[in-house]
Amino acid sequence: MYGLTMEQPLLISSLIEFAARFHRDVEVISRNVDGSIHRCTWNEVARRSRRLARALLRLGVKEGDRVATIAWNNYRHLEIYFAVSGIGAVLHTINPRLAPDQLVYIVDHAEDVALFYDTSFAKLIDVVRTQSRGTVREYVPLTGEGYDALLEPESETFDWPQFDERTASSLCYTSGTEGEPKGVLYSHRSTVLHSLAIGGAGALGISGADVTLPVVPMFHVNAWGVPYAAAMVGGKLVLPGPGLDGPSLYELIEAERVTSLMGVPIVWFNLLNHLRSIGARLSTVQKVTVGGSAAPPTLIEAFEHEHGVRVIHAWGMTETSPLGTASILLPKHAALDAHAQLAIKAKQGRAVFGIDMRLVDDDGRVLDHDGKQTGHLQVRGPWVASGYFRRPQHESHVDGWFATGDIATIDPDGYMQITDRSKDVIKSGGEWISSIELERAGMACPGVAQAAAVGLAHPRWGERPLLVVVKAPGAAITTDAIRAHLVPLVPKWWLPDGIEFVESLPIGATGKVLKRKLREQFAGYTFASVSGPG
Amino acid sequence: MYGLTMEQPLLISSLIEFAARFHRDVEVISRNVDGSIHRCTWNEVARRSRRLARALLRLGVKEGDRVATIAWNNYRHLEIYFAVSGIGAVLHTINPRLAPDQLVYIVDHAEDVALFYDTSFAKLIDVVRTQSRGTVREYVPLTGEGYDALLEPESETFDWPQFDERTASSLCYTSGTEGEPKGVLYSHRSTVLHSLAIGGAGALGISGADVTLPVVPMFHVNAWGVPYAAAMVGGKLVLPGPGLDGPSLYELIEAERVTSLMGVPIVWFNLLNHLRSIGARLSTVQKVTVGGSAAPPTLIEAFEHEHGVRVIHAWGMTETSPLGTASILLPKHAALDAHAQLAIKAKQGRAVFGIDMRLVDDDGRVLDHDGKQTGHLQVRGPWVASGYFRRPQHESHVDGWFATGDIATIDPDGYMQITDRSKDVIKSGGEWISSIELERAGMACPGVAQAAAVGLAHPRWGERPLLVVVKAPGAAITTDAIRAHLVPLVPKWWLPDGIEFVESLPIGATGKVLKRKLREQFAGYTFASVSGPG
Repeated sequence: MYGLTMEQPLLISSLIEFAARFHRDVEVISRNVDGSIHRCTWNEVARRSRRLARALLRLGVKEGDRVATIAWNNYRHLEIYFAVSGIGAVLHTINPRLAPDQLVYIVDHAEDVALFYDTSFAKLIDVVRTQSRGTVREYVPLTGEGYDALLEPESETFDWPQFDERTASSLCYTSGTEGEPKGVLYSHRSTVLHSLAIGGAGALGISGADVTLPVVPMFHVNAWGVPYAAAMVGGKLVLPGPGLDGPSLYELIEAERVTSLMGVPIVWFNLLNHLRSIGARLSTVQKVTVGGSAAPPTLIEAFEHEHGVRVIHAWGMTETSPLGTASILLPKHAALDAHAQLAIKAKQGRAVFGIDMRLVDDDGRVLDHDGKQTGHLQVRGPWVASGYFRRPQHESHVDGWFATGDIATIDPDGYMQITDRSKDVIKSGGEWISSIELERAGMACPGVAQAAAVGLAHPRWGERPLLVVVKAPGAAITTDAIRAHLVPLVPKWWLPDGIEFVESLPIGATGKVLKRKLREQFAGYTFASVSGPG
Repeated sequence: MYGLTMEQPLLISSLIEFAARFHRDVEVISRNVDGSIHRCTWNEVARRSRRLARALLRLGVKEGDRVATIAWNNYRHLEIYFAVSGIGAVLHTINPRLAPDQLVYIVDHAEDVALFYDTSFAKLIDVVRTQSRGTVREYVPLTGEGYDALLEPESETFDWPQFDERTASSLCYTSGTEGEPKGVLYSHRSTVLHSLAIGGAGALGISGADVTLPVVPMFHVNAWGVPYAAAMVGGKLVLPGPGLDGPSLYELIEAERVTSLMGVPIVWFNLLNHLRSIGARLSTVQKVTVGGSAAPPTLIEAFEHEHGVRVIHAWGMTETSPLGTASILLPKHAALDAHAQLAIKAKQGRAVFGIDMRLVDDDGRVLDHDGKQTGHLQVRGPWVASGYFRRPQHESHVDGWFATGDIATIDPDGYMQITDRSKDVIKSGGEWISSIELERAGMACPGVAQAAAVGLAHPRWGERPLLVVVKAPGAAITTDAIRAHLVPLVPKWWLPDGIEFVESLPIGATGKVLKRKLREQFAGYTFASVSGPG
């Protein structure tokens, strides 16, 4: 009697079949481990995904089984994305930059039954083979003799099984700097909803009009969901393989006329430095999504002024699939000057629908969105983790909210800005100093390439800030000059009581500065002079 | 043990609460029936929606009850959208352009328990009052004394009920030109998924960066879902009330700095003619979505060349929520000349993910997507109707597909192009002539403002085409000139055997030409000369 809308589960297999039916000739380009370029189409990705699905079933992979990958962004990895989830198994992407013991830990914890890997990681695979508990029955190198031979006997027709959209689809471990890695388990429903969300014009805005190059690795939060969204919208997809350095990226971007890039700040600094060194300009790129860690204003300005490229500053975490917020200007901001606009773009941005956010203080009281009060950022939504894989209830999941571990503000227009990680905030004389704002101020100083602020123990103030600086190539900047630069930019008692130059900052597996390492490195540091609060 | 992603139903109440939390100061502007402008914010819309929700419960409206509206696009109608669906009742939007007997039919069929109306429709309301079966317990005019007084005693805090996302949310009857109107029932799930889809950069691309003015009425397929999507993305929304003529729209567009418009071709022709007559140019608009009926290439060119506005040609139906396809160019099309690009933009476009399409011949065989074969277009997806409200199984719903009644092609890139309505196609000597292509060729003739092609009975060929033409103001075009213009554009046997001038074409309740009326008007027409197939 009630003719409601049709029933259709939101499944990952429907993404690749949609691409096969309606985007069949759109190209998927990838750079192989040997540097050669592989060209195929979405239809070919679909056909080979179906063959792999059959091969997985032949190997005895069952619904719910975990199938691991340690691989670059390339077409075979893309096929594995669709085939493993498509048959109802769980795609477990492993970050090869993890320490070997962590890697063995997660293979054992996930009880992976098969492992597909790029040959660049052969040594890591040996570690897994020899040190893991042996749940992995099949090790398949992504080569002609390995992977392609597995597909060889299989038909390219396959009816993907239909099941509940709340079935687990993929698994990604957070490379936590403390404690054991924690697994985040996504579902078909969460993945499809997230794909719809990131395609939004106010989010990453992925469309068929784009040529999309995700530099963010497919072993890191599903490459921010870009492979799924690209299949959904029928965009040309360019997968860079292992070539993430400036020259390799630039060559690929120009050759394939890429319009849309996604990645972490460090990758973009490397690309921009390369472009400056050869005097080149990005000729086809229209937008760059920057996430993973905060986009420094200097980065946003460099893309906009040197290359005419729009920057989308986005925020998310492994636990949020990852998209949480994206920073785009509202119509009313058109009247602001460039400086004021930049201040908005440098915020992490507005929540995308599906993500609810709130700020709470140390006692759990909910704070106003006034753009001034800082509090612990909590989120919830249909693509936010409710807990961790095979873990008892975790302290970060309380009352239906996920505590991100970030300290943030939210302004009346809804723009969220992260001022610190809870564990990185510098607690000095009972007040908080934002390490991120100190770093931003430091990086705005000419001659400074990178800066990291950490709180070091101090007998009177609890902690005092140290600023660790990497000079720009050839710059002759002094600590006095940096200090003088900071004076007008931050409160007086925030001024770092020490500034130290280093050759490079310690960077973790996901491209973030490891503050813990810096704190260890400078433990016992003696401050020259101290300007505490009050 | 499995910490999957969080459970959260996709509910319409979550859209307005999201807007209240994160887009609270973004403006919602509407023109009242008296021409005055009303300004409020999304937060105020949310607060008043909650008060209305309480008032509806006070009036005894229960989950599943139908609550009707006969109203323009304005803020009170927007509040009703969120409040009625939000409490689990069903929003039944009624098209005031329906014939009074049809209007009474659908009020009775839906068994509406309340009816909210703009005072412009007072006479229609009298008809309903006196002729309907009397299910309507409350008639509420959208005025201070009526609607606002209803909200007056209520608190603005309200906890929206949580329920299954597959609950019915709204109801819209198709104003079928034949037979009784058929009700399409949407769900919360279908509405939220559709909102995510239309926000896509490759679809209508609604974002917080836009100032959106839906000219498409809120009584017609939920204004294409724009009110929901605008709340989702936090865009400024401009609701034009009853002023849909060129001068009224132009004034509002400029005053509110509108960037994005949505509506049917006839509205745009009126606007463009007005702009030409006063020598004005749209100064803020960036894109116009054209749907409801095919966007003539002349319309696309006029927007692009005269106003620098990008046209998004979209297709959908009441049964498809409505978005089915949208036409945007692929990167590879950049190399084409303007003429070839226009030919692609004039197609109805590529399916948005969620919508599956296929072509079948008269015997139900599935046809290839080669861009040449024409067939009956069928669609399916989570926001496509599975049947009609309170109707037995309908012939248009078979094997999980909905038969659109359109004749179309789909090319290898996925672009669908409608060549005719099944019932409007001109069947001549066993072959099909596309009435739409004839019209498009006719409208490309200088001096022709509008053209409609219909098939009229012919003893030898079954049917032969008649082209009915409205001249452009002041044009001195002749039938011979039109015929000469058509010769190079269509196959010889397609050439209309009669061309007749009329003052205006009969337009239906949703802005489409009523071919049925034309066929009646010209029944018994004698063709001057006949050039049948072969």
